[in-house]
Amino acid sequence: MLRPEEASISLVNRENYWVYQPLLPEVVSGSIGLTDTVSPIRRLCPRADLVMRDVEEIDLQNRVVTLSPGFRPRKTQIHYDQLVIALGNVTNLLGMSGLQEHAMPFRTLADAIRLRNHMIHALEEADFETDVELRKKLLTFVVAGGGFSGVEVIAELNDFVRAVAKSYPDIPTNEVRCVLVHSGKHILPEMVEGLAVFAEKVLRDRGVEILLNDRLDAATSEMAKLKSGLQIPTKTIVSTVPSALPPVLESLNVPKEKGRLAVNEHLELQGYEGQVWIVGDCGAIKTASGNPVPPTAQHAVREAKTVAHNIRAVIRGTTRTTFTFEGLGKLASLGHHSAVADVFGIRISGFFAWWLWRTIYLLKMPGWDRKVRIATDWFLDLLFPPELVQLRVSGSSGITQQHFQPGEVIFNQGDIGDSVYAIQEGECEVLREDNGVTQTVAVLGPASFFGEMAVLADCSRNATVRALTPVRVLSMSKSDFEKISATVPAFASVFTDLAKNRTARP
Amino acid sequence: MLRPEEASISLVNRENYWVYQPLLPEVVSGSIGLTDTVSPIRRLCPRADLVMRDVEEIDLQNRVVTLSPGFRPRKTQIHYDQLVIALGNVTNLLGMSGLQEHAMPFRTLADAIRLRNHMIHALEEADFETDVELRKKLLTFVVAGGGFSGVEVIAELNDFVRAVAKSYPDIPTNEVRCVLVHSGKHILPEMVEGLAVFAEKVLRDRGVEILLNDRLDAATSEMAKLKSGLQIPTKTIVSTVPSALPPVLESLNVPKEKGRLAVNEHLELQGYEGQVWIVGDCGAIKTASGNPVPPTAQHAVREAKTVAHNIRAVIRGTTRTTFTFEGLGKLASLGHHSAVADVFGIRISGFFAWWLWRTIYLLKMPGWDRKVRIATDWFLDLLFPPELVQLRVSGSSGITQQHFQPGEVIFNQGDIGDSVYAIQEGECEVLREDNGVTQTVAVLGPASFFGEMAVLADCSRNATVRALTPVRVLSMSKSDFEKISATVPAFASVFTDLAKNRTARP
Repeated sequence: MLRPEEASISLVNRENYWVYQPLLPEVVSGSIGLTDTVSPIRRLCPRADLVMRDVEEIDLQNRVVTLSPGFRPRKTQIHYDQLVIALGNVTNLLGMSGLQEHAMPFRTLADAIRLRNHMIHALEEADFETDVELRKKLLTFVVAGGGFSGVEVIAELNDFVRAVAKSYPDIPTNEVRCVLVHSGKHILPEMVEGLAVFAEKVLRDRGVEILLNDRLDAATSEMAKLKSGLQIPTKTIVSTVPSALPPVLESLNVPKEKGRLAVNEHLELQGYEGQVWIVGDCGAIKTASGNPVPPTAQHAVREAKTVAHNIRAVIRGTTRTTFTFEGLGKLASLGHHSAVADVFGIRISGFFAWWLWRTIYLLKMPGWDRKVRIATDWFLDLLFPPELVQLRVSGSSGITQQHFQPGEVIFNQGDIGDSVYAIQEGECEVLREDNGVTQTVAVLGPASFFGEMAVLADCSRNATVRALTPVRVLSMSKSDFEKISATVPAFASVFTDLAKNRTARP
Repeated sequence: MLRPEEASISLVNRENYWVYQPLLPEVVSGSIGLTDTVSPIRRLCPRADLVMRDVEEIDLQNRVVTLSPGFRPRKTQIHYDQLVIALGNVTNLLGMSGLQEHAMPFRTLADAIRLRNHMIHALEEADFETDVELRKKLLTFVVAGGGFSGVEVIAELNDFVRAVAKSYPDIPTNEVRCVLVHSGKHILPEMVEGLAVFAEKVLRDRGVEILLNDRLDAATSEMAKLKSGLQIPTKTIVSTVPSALPPVLESLNVPKEKGRLAVNEHLELQGYEGQVWIVGDCGAIKTASGNPVPPTAQHAVREAKTVAHNIRAVIRGTTRTTFTFEGLGKLASLGHHSAVADVFGIRISGFFAWWLWRTIYLLKMPGWDRKVRIATDWFLDLLFPPELVQLRVSGSSGITQQHFQPGEVIFNQGDIGDSVYAIQEGECEVLREDNGVTQTVAVLGPASFFGEMAVLADCSRNATVRALTPVRVLSMSKSDFEKISATVPAFASVFTDLAKNRTARP
């Protein structure tokens, strides 16, 4: 809209691509290629200068945005005349027992690929596992949240697991469980009840268990605990709720409404009119009739147009417009040639809705190359069995947090010593079995550590450690522990002294 | 070959897919999809039980293979009657200054994706970087080793960087350098000289610098140092040499020949005839004329057939055959519709060789779905610009080793404090600038640490640290440092005490 001499435009984004959210669940099942839901920003926006960094701080007074460091440990600052904030929201699992540690979010391409890899790993282990209880956990997949995202994820996940299970000779298919947990009376709260009921029937017919009026309350590496008290033994928990402002926006000293930035009808940030504009899920934006805007692409695209128009109006001194879009309709894919749709007031479900879903989203995907690639993938997907390649790019970080519920075992006597643990919160008991008699050897509280003996001596665990209360531990992998110990003697001596004292005990 | 009642077959592999090595360099340029060079083992070998684990130990006396733990920290053992070892070799950069830390290997799918992500990150930063020296480093790509793998990597890398640089408005294309370093007189030592010279000309015409009679000697995060003393400032070093036995085979107490397991003409391991068989690059296998077998798929496939025949012979008591394959020819792709080939004694180069290369490898790729997907990708690649999406699945581990050459700066006064360092080897000097005067404040040796002050106080570096000798340091990210400090007070106090003493200094 603006001529090059009127404005220079910088776009700051963590990745160099833009994610087409509606198709992200299809990455889980591999029915489209791993990178086909995303499109390179440089080709989409040739007029803007892309800066591939994180936004670390926004200083509204001085009109400065601070970016994270790149290859050099130096911060970069960008001064602006006009700022558009479109940072969306994040999955905030902090403060919920164990969710931060054990529930996987589902927002980004990396989340989708991580979930896919985790599922395939669980299937591979289930095929080889002889312990029936552990095998059941490996074959149980829990998704929390029955909105658009949760429903599409469970649909794709269920289709994928049941289709590929045939390639695993030792997986009993009747042990596969895919569970959707939703807090409301019906899934898909944005849809009319009739369509939601239809969607529930379709999913249940295909083997999905749907638990309504319940919600995920706590998670450990062994199970999902629901608010009703129900415990579902599982190794895979996906959470599509709840969302919060990104920390960089949370810390802004501006008015907020229900955890979102307050905006006026021109989409200007309150207190910074004519300077700062809000687009997408981080703003408390309302439709013409005063309802909150749903988190869908059709609204975000119209918001962007309004903001673009208004920035031009400020620069050229013309009149601003107001945001008045009401929405064209709603679509949710149920996988496997079925969907529900509510478009222009017409409600449809089943195959035709699915065909409509695919057609609309394919047309809306920007870039001809993506359109062709996705269409090709969908065509090949009809001919060939689903992709079951696991794509591990790098191991997880050596230092992680874990959560355990009372009674859960952190490790068993006889296990191999692959990590050292430190208690951050809660208490654990140490149990040792000798000649068939099990004794409590010690009770450990916050700031104490355990597991160092087997790691130092490179042998198997000589005791079992079990949580007495809800426990949060920090675990450090053997290789990281060895690297630090070898280099920082003070660190190593803390553990070797401790190990000596423990050996001296009966 | 064997009936189900004659044998049960287990296949242990780290991944659940098989990698088609010849097409791996195409993953770097994105001309085929990320997972299209690999094929799921379960579909390729339905007769075998796949176990997705690492091999940790082989006990030849007791016929037991020990596997790494899966979801539970427990080791698994498999007892065998017949063992086939096909573990290939690994890139061993240990003991070469800085190569372990700063040179990227190129063997697995994860290596290829990591290289691709790193290149795209370097291009993104180069587009935004105003420091000319740093920008040149970001735009210089060095590949060490001019064998098949190195040549194909530099060809794809060069094509990709030059093609996508157009999407980066602020990258001066004349600053892009792609350098191939090779120790011999000509690249592609397995080929006849005429074809090697042709390949050199093709690559040089497309902008690749080829440095012959030289080799990579040391690497830091800022440069590649060659044996001749030449220093190439760069942020990207790929090493396709040298190879070694995997540690699990290195530790076997059996005869070895030139760093490979000694085998006889039936491909039996010396000392374990009739029990243990060797296939592929981990064995010192010879052709009928007594030459070492080159590391190519055509030989490995025939070796596998010989071993399969001989295992059946042992079980059924029939006669073993000997391995006599001589090789059909050699092919190397130079990217961009060019290749060199030496097939059945006929030497060809250019477009026809490239067409032959694609056709042969496409036909040899197992599985109809892969064939169709790769053919589709190749077709789309002719129509659309190369893919420039960076696919980061997870951040790197928080604890890493880094190598610095004398005079190199580890961090500068004023940089942000994002890591804590501990010296493993060598000496560093600490320099502080006050009112334009720079003073050496301290010299630090092994086991001392630095960088904790800025991290503890969350401020910028108050001094510069520079390597005096070749230095190896362990660096821990701020987030990991904070996690451990908060949980293990003894660890934190080591650093806070130190920081207090340092502040007391002038």
